[in-house]
Amino acid sequence: MFITFEGPDGSGKSTQIKFAKEYLENKGFEVVTTRDPGGTSLGIKLREILLNYDGDICSLTEMLIFLADRAQHVEYKIKPLLAQGKIVLCDRYIDSTVAYQGYARGLSVDAAEYMNNIATQNFMPDLTFLFNLPVETTMERVAKQGTKDRLESEMREFHQKVIDGYLDIARRNPDRFRVIDGNKPVEEVSAAVKLALETFIKQNAIIINKLKTR
Amino acid sequence: MFITFEGPDGSGKSTQIKFAKEYLENKGFEVVTTRDPGGTSLGIKLREILLNYDGDICSLTEMLIFLADRAQHVEYKIKPLLAQGKIVLCDRYIDSTVAYQGYARGLSVDAAEYMNNIATQNFMPDLTFLFNLPVETTMERVAKQGTKDRLESEMREFHQKVIDGYLDIARRNPDRFRVIDGNKPVEEVSAAVKLALETFIKQNAIIINKLKTR
Repeated sequence: MFITFEGPDGSGKSTQIKFAKEYLENKGFEVVTTRDPGGTSLGIKLREILLNYDGDICSLTEMLIFLADRAQHVEYKIKPLLAQGKIVLCDRYIDSTVAYQGYARGLSVDAAEYMNNIATQNFMPDLTFLFNLPVETTMERVAKQGTKDRLESEMREFHQKVIDGYLDIARRNPDRFRVIDGNKPVEEVSAAVKLALETFIKQNAIIINKLKTR
Repeated sequence: MFITFEGPDGSGKSTQIKFAKEYLENKGFEVVTTRDPGGTSLGIKLREILLNYDGDICSLTEMLIFLADRAQHVEYKIKPLLAQGKIVLCDRYIDSTVAYQGYARGLSVDAAEYMNNIATQNFMPDLTFLFNLPVETTMERVAKQGTKDRLESEMREFHQKVIDGYLDIARRNPDRFRVIDGNKPVEEVSAAVKLALETFIKQNAIIINKLKTR
């Protein structure tokens, strides 16, 4: 079971990944958390460039480095972990590229999706949480964190496009997406995550019982 | 005028780029040489990963890092230089990706070409030299150079596929390609390069005279 967590910066992804991990472990699953970019040792080198390179990086280059990281992550980490029967929870994945580089940077959304498919060999999440936030809240929360990295320093208009892009992807992929209001108190957000996981496990009980008995 | 130099390792590209630069400068042009990967400061970081990373890099990741480097190279170096009226000579470009990653690594040739088009925004060379060599010669020449990088250490079968791939690309793009026998003495190879450049300049005299009078 491969579950991804998406949303703008400051939307509470990290908190909810921790929550989901504990919840699933208590249900008896083996759970591994990872992140995109930076989920492999090569990915850490690429992530360092993406977040902290001090020159200009053109939008296409940025997207291609994300995709390079992702190809390595799928092949050498995510697929092997799933093959061992583990549940993989991933902080950002294909939808981040489409939202940030496709919608917000104004590169072609179709090209971003096509290139995601090539880079991952069409390897899709079983379930994707999208934490939705008003742009004001995401900007306030990021401001509170102190130093911003290169992507977090983008302007309000950019963040609004990211959010709108995410919502559009979710509308086009209703089976895979669970859109959760990230502007509510953290306990309510976790309760929504828990409910979605419970429902998903029930719906996929036959497959999931196989995981537990490995 | 954007001219690329392609061929397997040890095919004499560097020598012929030097020769072409001198020849064109003597004709009164301003000429800049560059290389792919590693033509920008970001590209140098990516090239370092490509050639010397000591873990495994999956084929897709490799291709995507080459493309990331290329997108940056086109946008921040090649196009600005051409806009200044300079002739740009580039050691490897899009055809290397199609030959090495598309044909030799067995990734899809169509996908490699599509992704090249995205990464370069369809920015094509005006002229491409392909230095053709028997696989034995390329392997002997590389062996003589001493230490091999990650890509040069590939086996004979891989190098044969690279050569066959290059020839197939050249066959499909006869207007852009000049295929030159790289197995002849260096003076003969240079004479063939000189002849091709002379002919190209004559055919494109109107455009090229504009370059000179800037």
